[in-house]
Amino acid sequence: MKRLLVIGGSDAGISAALRAREVDPSWGVGLVVADAFPNYSICGLPFFLSGETPRWESLAHRTRTEIEGRGIELMLDTIADHIEPGEHRVWVRPTDGAERAMSYDRLVLGTGAAPALPPIRGLDTPGVYLLHTMAEGLAVHDHLTARSPKTAIIIGGGYIGLEMADALRVRGLAVTLFEAAPTVLQTVDPEFGRLVLGELERHGIAVHTSTAIQAIEGGPSGVVVHDTAGERVEADLVLVVAGVRPQADLGTRCGVHAGVRGALRVNRRMETNVSDVFAAGDCVETHHRLMSEATYIPLGTTAHKQGRVAGENAVGGYAEFQGSLGTQVVKIFELVVGRTGLREDEARRQGFSPWTFESVTWDHKAYYPGASRLRIRVTGDLRSRRLLGAQLLGQYGAEVSKRLDVFATALFHAMTVHDVAHLDLSYTPPLGSPWDPVQTACMEWALAAPASDPRKDA
Amino acid sequence: MKRLLVIGGSDAGISAALRAREVDPSWGVGLVVADAFPNYSICGLPFFLSGETPRWESLAHRTRTEIEGRGIELMLDTIADHIEPGEHRVWVRPTDGAERAMSYDRLVLGTGAAPALPPIRGLDTPGVYLLHTMAEGLAVHDHLTARSPKTAIIIGGGYIGLEMADALRVRGLAVTLFEAAPTVLQTVDPEFGRLVLGELERHGIAVHTSTAIQAIEGGPSGVVVHDTAGERVEADLVLVVAGVRPQADLGTRCGVHAGVRGALRVNRRMETNVSDVFAAGDCVETHHRLMSEATYIPLGTTAHKQGRVAGENAVGGYAEFQGSLGTQVVKIFELVVGRTGLREDEARRQGFSPWTFESVTWDHKAYYPGASRLRIRVTGDLRSRRLLGAQLLGQYGAEVSKRLDVFATALFHAMTVHDVAHLDLSYTPPLGSPWDPVQTACMEWALAAPASDPRKDA
Repeated sequence: MKRLLVIGGSDAGISAALRAREVDPSWGVGLVVADAFPNYSICGLPFFLSGETPRWESLAHRTRTEIEGRGIELMLDTIADHIEPGEHRVWVRPTDGAERAMSYDRLVLGTGAAPALPPIRGLDTPGVYLLHTMAEGLAVHDHLTARSPKTAIIIGGGYIGLEMADALRVRGLAVTLFEAAPTVLQTVDPEFGRLVLGELERHGIAVHTSTAIQAIEGGPSGVVVHDTAGERVEADLVLVVAGVRPQADLGTRCGVHAGVRGALRVNRRMETNVSDVFAAGDCVETHHRLMSEATYIPLGTTAHKQGRVAGENAVGGYAEFQGSLGTQVVKIFELVVGRTGLREDEARRQGFSPWTFESVTWDHKAYYPGASRLRIRVTGDLRSRRLLGAQLLGQYGAEVSKRLDVFATALFHAMTVHDVAHLDLSYTPPLGSPWDPVQTACMEWALAAPASDPRKDA
Repeated sequence: MKRLLVIGGSDAGISAALRAREVDPSWGVGLVVADAFPNYSICGLPFFLSGETPRWESLAHRTRTEIEGRGIELMLDTIADHIEPGEHRVWVRPTDGAERAMSYDRLVLGTGAAPALPPIRGLDTPGVYLLHTMAEGLAVHDHLTARSPKTAIIIGGGYIGLEMADALRVRGLAVTLFEAAPTVLQTVDPEFGRLVLGELERHGIAVHTSTAIQAIEGGPSGVVVHDTAGERVEADLVLVVAGVRPQADLGTRCGVHAGVRGALRVNRRMETNVSDVFAAGDCVETHHRLMSEATYIPLGTTAHKQGRVAGENAVGGYAEFQGSLGTQVVKIFELVVGRTGLREDEARRQGFSPWTFESVTWDHKAYYPGASRLRIRVTGDLRSRRLLGAQLLGQYGAEVSKRLDVFATALFHAMTVHDVAHLDLSYTPPLGSPWDPVQTACMEWALAAPASDPRKDA
């Protein structure tokens, strides 16, 4: 029996293992997982910590029994120490056992990412948490339940920082959030970042923008943070959520080439340069559909797709990763904000002549109760008129995320902005308009866009 | 100054007039409207009649002032009597004036549809309404407010019949609905029709399926309907909503060719066979992206698009109608149900080898509060593996309609079912899953579909 070994039990690894079994059940599939939590939805931690999801066990995408029921051999609490690609074997070390070698015919690396460590002194102060693994999530939960903190500081205003601000506020804590940039959520335009900031403040979060933290230390009754302006703020609990970096060293130590930000380099079939070694998920570079070079966009959706491709190819099938558009969405209190494709600055770096127009429409016919305003920022190329990206912001319940997905599907097919109006989208007054806001936004872009790029032609 | 004349003040006519002014403001644009209600959302009548939309005036997509502000000359309460295409003129008859001739350089016909009259005796009985125009909607409203009816009968279980059942129930009436077919909502598969039927019954609607009405007459205290089985039911009010037929005679009388169901024949530029005469909306045949011959699918979304194309071409621009997918959605009480593309029987008539698979998933991660079950029926071609259609049914609030639109966008681009999994769709636990239900449904289809069409190969 041929043997596929997968290292990593999160999105990429599990997807690879499941797909391999679907494509060719004659292969044996082993899955090496560093902790005891295979296939957990780390994205769900904020909702567990807010109390909205009472049981951490429900964060599992699948139970152990389900995974094993698909014919996958699970090795939990087992560290993959090093790979000997010439011998086709991996040395693994179970927490409670001796190191041993496991042979493979094909190997998939899904080693994921680790929290980025910002240049702050005292990150190891008790009461400071880097929220990334299930174990850390459970540690924060223990702190919240056993010690009933009243105040929290969050360092970092990205997706997770904002979700945690929401979560801890729902839990009743007073929350202070620090962000080094002039506004929060750097992944969308500042126009939207400021609206998100307003939503945070409306819900009582104290937000300090343009403020970096330089040191953390234990205080008389909790943790004290010092910002670069010399101010100090104290709280019972500090979360540091400053993004992630690829966890690629298992691969690079055996000769896999690394690229952008140290992520493993792979082709569209998720093959590395090392024979019979594939890689997928947050540990690899991301192929972007609209960019000419590789980038690094660690997202669960992408990890699932790449893992599926790796798993299919590893057992002799043929699949290609079709590329990311960086599609992301987040709910913060009553607001939903998302993006897909490129923003202007990103598009300009790729040689496009981008231009952005923001439209404001009702999410559905205003005469039907509950209509709310939906903001859509469309970015298109002034020369080819191709759609390059879209950002949406609206109320929870206004079908913001699936409208974003209509844009993502249009982007996948390289539509022009103008052609979006030709799509036959659904309409009923309680849910939309005869021209969906997606289309209105594109029609407004097309009417307002200059005939050529003023920057290029100047 | 060149002059565009548009006949009809609903979706197609208004879109044509507005687009013409956008494309070439040097053209004069006149709009002949048979009644006093230009640009009204007839789709909104159920919500006005339910009381959810208190003022009928708010059903207007745009006010008269807005339309006139775009440089369009409005002629209300004016019937277009006949066209003399050789002389490039139309004879019109204002309600309060004498017939006169209006000359045009280009003409757009947007004469819409009229209610289909089912073979029922006594449709002119007082208390019986054919809900189609604003005037009829206001008459029903007068009946509801002035006479406070307690009971209503609805004849016809299509979109409008179901929306009106919902509306009158919300208003507190006891509602009986008759449908000649074995279940309601013939535009979706009976599996979904039965679930919609259940939703109606849960809300107290008495539904009689497989029951045709043969006669209506005045009764002692209201209106009596007689079904073909000899039963009689009495109510204060009867609505007959049995679909529509194209209102094409203004065009055919001047030589425009008619086709499917008597609708005006047009090309992709919305040109008729008569020189300088365009037509759009519910009075024309529909070009369908997945069908090899013309069909008739009267929908507001399509009328808007066709009108826009007609208006652009009429003033010397160039546009082509890109085709309908028959995308439709309706909200009935707490349920949203929709479809796009072809159902199996329709696809088979087009020479495809269709096969349908129904998946049931959560609309978002089940660990986040409020998750509900979403049913998706994917129809794909067994030979080419091309996506042919999708039907969705789920709870109001579960982003059903914009998920339908992701399918509609995929269909527009002739994707295979398998490739839908490659789309980079958005994910956050409160709103979706790492594989969106749209993708899960397609992946399940791809895993379950037989390798070839058993019907063809038998």
